[in-house]
Amino acid sequence: MSSLYGKKIRIAIFGQSHSAAIGVSIDGLPAGIKIDIAELRAFLRRRAPGQSELATARAENDMPEILSGLVNNITCGAPLAMIIRNTDVRSADYSEVRDTPRPSHADYTAHIKFGGHQDVAGSGHFSGRLTPPLCAAGGICLQILRDIGVFVGAHILRIGDAGDDPFNPIYISSADFEAIRDNPLPVLRREAGEAMRQQIQDARDKGDSVGGVIECAAIGLPAGLGDPIFDGIENRVAAIVFGIPAVKGIEFGSGFAGAARRGSENNDGLYMDGGAVRTRTNNSGGILGGITNGMPVVFRAAIKPTPSIGLKQESVSLSGAENTMIQVQGRHDPCIVPRAVPCVEAAAAIALYDAWLDR
Amino acid sequence: MSSLYGKKIRIAIFGQSHSAAIGVSIDGLPAGIKIDIAELRAFLRRRAPGQSELATARAENDMPEILSGLVNNITCGAPLAMIIRNTDVRSADYSEVRDTPRPSHADYTAHIKFGGHQDVAGSGHFSGRLTPPLCAAGGICLQILRDIGVFVGAHILRIGDAGDDPFNPIYISSADFEAIRDNPLPVLRREAGEAMRQQIQDARDKGDSVGGVIECAAIGLPAGLGDPIFDGIENRVAAIVFGIPAVKGIEFGSGFAGAARRGSENNDGLYMDGGAVRTRTNNSGGILGGITNGMPVVFRAAIKPTPSIGLKQESVSLSGAENTMIQVQGRHDPCIVPRAVPCVEAAAAIALYDAWLDR
Amino acid sequence: MSSLYGKKIRIAIFGQSHSAAIGVSIDGLPAGIKIDIAELRAFLRRRAPGQSELATARAENDMPEILSGLVNNITCGAPLAMIIRNTDVRSADYSEVRDTPRPSHADYTAHIKFGGHQDVAGSGHFSGRLTPPLCAAGGICLQILRDIGVFVGAHILRIGDAGDDPFNPIYISSADFEAIRDNPLPVLRREAGEAMRQQIQDARDKGDSVGGVIECAAIGLPAGLGDPIFDGIENRVAAIVFGIPAVKGIEFGSGFAGAARRGSENNDGLYMDGGAVRTRTNNSGGILGGITNGMPVVFRAAIKPTPSIGLKQESVSLSGAENTMIQVQGRHDPCIVPRAVPCVEAAAAIALYDAWLDR
Amino acid sequence: MSSLYGKKIRIAIFGQSHSAAIGVSIDGLPAGIKIDIAELRAFLRRRAPGQSELATARAENDMPEILSGLVNNITCGAPLAMIIRNTDVRSADYSEVRDTPRPSHADYTAHIKFGGHQDVAGSGHFSGRLTPPLCAAGGICLQILRDIGVFVGAHILRIGDAGDDPFNPIYISSADFEAIRDNPLPVLRREAGEAMRQQIQDARDKGDSVGGVIECAAIGLPAGLGDPIFDGIENRVAAIVFGIPAVKGIEFGSGFAGAARRGSENNDGLYMDGGAVRTRTNNSGGILGGITNGMPVVFRAAIKPTPSIGLKQESVSLSGAENTMIQVQGRHDPCIVPRAVPCVEAAAAIALYDAWLDR
Repeated sequence: MSSLYGKKIRIAIFGQSHSAAIGVSIDGLPAGIKIDIAELRAFLRRRAPGQSELATARAENDMPEILSGLVNNITCGAPLAMIIRNTDVRSADYSEVRDTPRPSHADYTAHIKFGGHQDVAGSGHFSGRLTPPLCAAGGICLQILRDIGVFVGAHILRIGDAGDDPFNPIYISSADFEAIRDNPLPVLRREAGEAMRQQIQDARDKGDSVGGVIECAAIGLPAGLGDPIFDGIENRVAAIVFGIPAVKGIEFGSGFAGAARRGSENNDGLYMDGGAVRTRTNNSGGILGGITNGMPVVFRAAIKPTPSIGLKQESVSLSGAENTMIQVQGRHDPCIVPRAVPCVEAAAAIALYDAWLDR
Repeated sequence: MSSLYGKKIRIAIFGQSHSAAIGVSIDGLPAGIKIDIAELRAFLRRRAPGQSELATARAENDMPEILSGLVNNITCGAPLAMIIRNTDVRSADYSEVRDTPRPSHADYTAHIKFGGHQDVAGSGHFSGRLTPPLCAAGGICLQILRDIGVFVGAHILRIGDAGDDPFNPIYISSADFEAIRDNPLPVLRREAGEAMRQQIQDARDKGDSVGGVIECAAIGLPAGLGDPIFDGIENRVAAIVFGIPAVKGIEFGSGFAGAARRGSENNDGLYMDGGAVRTRTNNSGGILGGITNGMPVVFRAAIKPTPSIGLKQESVSLSGAENTMIQVQGRHDPCIVPRAVPCVEAAAAIALYDAWLDR
Repeated sequence: MSSLYGKKIRIAIFGQSHSAAIGVSIDGLPAGIKIDIAELRAFLRRRAPGQSELATARAENDMPEILSGLVNNITCGAPLAMIIRNTDVRSADYSEVRDTPRPSHADYTAHIKFGGHQDVAGSGHFSGRLTPPLCAAGGICLQILRDIGVFVGAHILRIGDAGDDPFNPIYISSADFEAIRDNPLPVLRREAGEAMRQQIQDARDKGDSVGGVIECAAIGLPAGLGDPIFDGIENRVAAIVFGIPAVKGIEFGSGFAGAARRGSENNDGLYMDGGAVRTRTNNSGGILGGITNGMPVVFRAAIKPTPSIGLKQESVSLSGAENTMIQVQGRHDPCIVPRAVPCVEAAAAIALYDAWLDR
Repeated sequence: MSSLYGKKIRIAIFGQSHSAAIGVSIDGLPAGIKIDIAELRAFLRRRAPGQSELATARAENDMPEILSGLVNNITCGAPLAMIIRNTDVRSADYSEVRDTPRPSHADYTAHIKFGGHQDVAGSGHFSGRLTPPLCAAGGICLQILRDIGVFVGAHILRIGDAGDDPFNPIYISSADFEAIRDNPLPVLRREAGEAMRQQIQDARDKGDSVGGVIECAAIGLPAGLGDPIFDGIENRVAAIVFGIPAVKGIEFGSGFAGAARRGSENNDGLYMDGGAVRTRTNNSGGILGGITNGMPVVFRAAIKPTPSIGLKQESVSLSGAENTMIQVQGRHDPCIVPRAVPCVEAAAAIALYDAWLDR
């Protein structure tokens, strides 16, 4: 197994970068929910390439065809399946990597895992091309969450050396998400975006790539979601966010920084706010014992620099069992962090909506 | 659901801090595997409290009784179930926290989740007391992995300000693990342990607590374990490691640090070593596309400072819906990081052995 | 995997016939539910052996010790774990079957499955001795269902040639269940019980055994439980009922008889009864498209005759790879059907309560 | 959840009778397996309607488009997804059943389950139209099983009063399956087919329908597949076979008939046949303790008569909450048993191949 996620809803993703189509089936959506297709398309456009000079030149049509699950745009209780045709496919670009794995790419591990039968074209099932189905499923969950008063948003916290301000983990509003959503570099502080743009352009100019950190928050979640031990919100969110290619770390609330602190610094004091229990700080990232406490859920995901770079790198010839060099050709993002932002939102929305249904 | 983990083997953990017993059932272990009970007990002793002046004074008997699954200490194909009696139980200590949740503890979220019916004594199902069953299951997986040439070990990378050297992610041997295993503060550099001890003692002297980071490595894994997208090794390991209380972050390989780098710095060049494909560096932490590449799997877990501290903190009275202060009484570790080391090893062993069986 | 069942609640059964204990963990029970321990014990007593001259002479103590999950007999949200010690164990009885499998018993398949490492004593994990944990879990679900107005009951429809009247699938009341519950041979028509008793005694006198059919009904279920295709009520009930040893068939509503009919005979006409939609007949067994329709759920389970008989039978010596004869010694029920009645009720209750939680 | 099945492979079925398409994703197929597309199409043609005067007049194109998972017709390790467009769709036929549920159809339960939002056209997700994806997935599993020496085949055992000979449960060869496979009424005894044809025509002439029983066998399975208690072969097969619309019962080996017997009649004596352990009879249907014993796996499924009949029947108006009559219009099979034969084969193949992978 591999490409399924969820307990109450089940996401089944399929496709390869250069297969006839990619797609997703969402099983378990309640019936009677209106889906706004235009809004879904707008959300998917945020992930789509070819939108700015910062991203790959591949002109994809990322708009899904909905095959089932809706009647007059209202969920009917049957699985909601969507496919996206792969159109701008140039498989010839990828012949070299079958024998010579790209460093830090899945080429070698896929070769071992699938005994040489993996689809190498465009990185096959390991491609970032598999994120549109994730985003399509997540885009639907985002809409449903919004209708129950839950909002999920993310921004780029860092690209290379350039950093944005973090979310204020106590005071986040959906307007904060709205304000940055359609920015190709969604950041809270405008100048941070400019610095990030320079990081990306510099990397590209050098035939290199650069990584970054995405910070995501969810507000409006009731206290009490998630389950103890292995089904906590952290476990559930981590289990899906690591499904986004290039994610190598995740932390909730104060995370690794909090691990250097004293309890007296890191503990979130409680107080009554009207009839509600709230915390003065939110180092817990809205989760205690795996369960939401009603404060914003806040987490950060580390995205490694794209492994496909134009520079010469050490590799091996698998057939010859000898050392060689590789210089990756073809279209590659110098930085996938901006396009990963809606992916992180989508993944969080799926995990949180699933936890909400499972409450 | 909550306390189950795994695909080929299924770990079901049960118990509360002050229930009659805690325990675990491991379903799916292959038959015919010899279990060394003395070794299992030795492993569990590493997690047990009351071993040094650094930990809680609760004198627990953590040695499990094996109820089923073994015949003459050899697995027989039936689920292997173990229980540990809770003996040194003083429930009276915990009466206050039913109404006044401890900051950054699961008291409040458990109250909401379970509608006031949660077991508050000793933190109930949310207690670190649920880690012995995890360690018992993991201790068995550690033995089985060792028998197939896979070794898992961890050390404390940081407590508060005091840091150890990281593992060399290329050259780790099982001897490295052996060398530190029985140290109450398992560190690679002896002086680091002394500095950590001071951090813990200082925290305790002030009625405070302190967090830290544990680094874990697994060597000897074949390339090709794990599955794409949602069943990658990162997803699987994260999904169980977040089941250890107080874990708030996880990163693989270069993790968050790698996210600040260029691809040319972070990529792991490949070369032939004898007949084997290896990498010059191991920023990938042994995992690409969710699948092992044959290099050591390396990850780090952030452990927040124990929320139970002796200092006065802001809280609320749930019954009175008013603000109040709380000063936690009772026996609490000023730092759970040392005792969490075998828990992290256990969790990793379960996830990796399960992935190995699921290959 | 093997001994786990459920979606919202998860039943993990462990133990062997002659291991230190057998037991079960129930994960996912909602908090705040009062459990009546005396009633649970009374339910378990129905399955216990040694109650009449019709059953095995083994004097078991089937009363479980509750290890966790309850506080003052109220569910606390943590898994509810129970164990039952195996006391009256005489392992020496079973030495022969290791080499000479009993015909139609799991001896041979367990030997192949577990490579000779299976626990042969008392049939190990394949014993009817594993049904007390099932009944313990089911007994709890039966109580919870009753509190929400759902009643589950079963009777013996047939033993050998002796048949009881079937349930009237339209008009069943909980009083019908109560009336027969404590009868060692629970039947609707008293004389049927006498005929069954003769079947059993005749089989025993001849060193033989006899099978039978159990009919089970559940009333009070709301319409709308279950899911299409693979998660229908039939799928869910069948998946657990086949977990009871010796069950070889299951049918819902008119089942195999209905398969010989015309649609005009088998269809259940609808009518309004007060404000409720009901059906004139109930050939559907209360399930259409996998989903309850509000009528009684009715199914029948076929129980094969106990394979362990005192007569000489053809077998093989596994070590010698040669034909031999076997004559089974030891304590065996000539008919397990009466003791399987509460097992079927328990299994149905688990499946239906799980479906109710999963609605 | 609803439309997912499997442990090692995961089948996700989607679509409604009149949605844009129906389809399936198969996750977890090993890489490197050659799929014969022409053979898959030939298998699907067996289920397709419009092939004889006995079946519905709907002219469907049941040939799937493969979207992913194959490279040069060889599995590549990514999920194998297929869709089939719904072309011959006349939704107007179904307007009446929204308010007036057809007796013994899922109309009413779907209405309750999905709160009136269910897709009523062509019975939506509850239609037999969802069986082509099941057959497509099963057709692939059948090919893979054949390549490892396992053959699955089924015949019609009974339609109404007309019965075929049962399989000889000891001596079945793949040639037996081949001989009947392409017969629209696959039976072992030619005259049985003629009698069945008359049953169907008689039912059709009267505006009625008729049910039947399908017997399925699998040969070549090694001993040792399946797991104890809840993951036995019976549990696994039942859990998928009840996913075929209209199945109301399943029995393995001697099933319900065996339940009336003595142990001495029903037990399968063992003997050595060359180096292999075999049984003289096969009342166990090849399964003991949930685990295959190397003999043919044999089971029978009861198929109720199609509920959609042209005769007047009692129903209700849901809007008016009053009694009414219904006479179903549109295209309906008088007997779905012949077309269900490949569905049963497909379901068995999926369950058995999944168990084989999970061994």
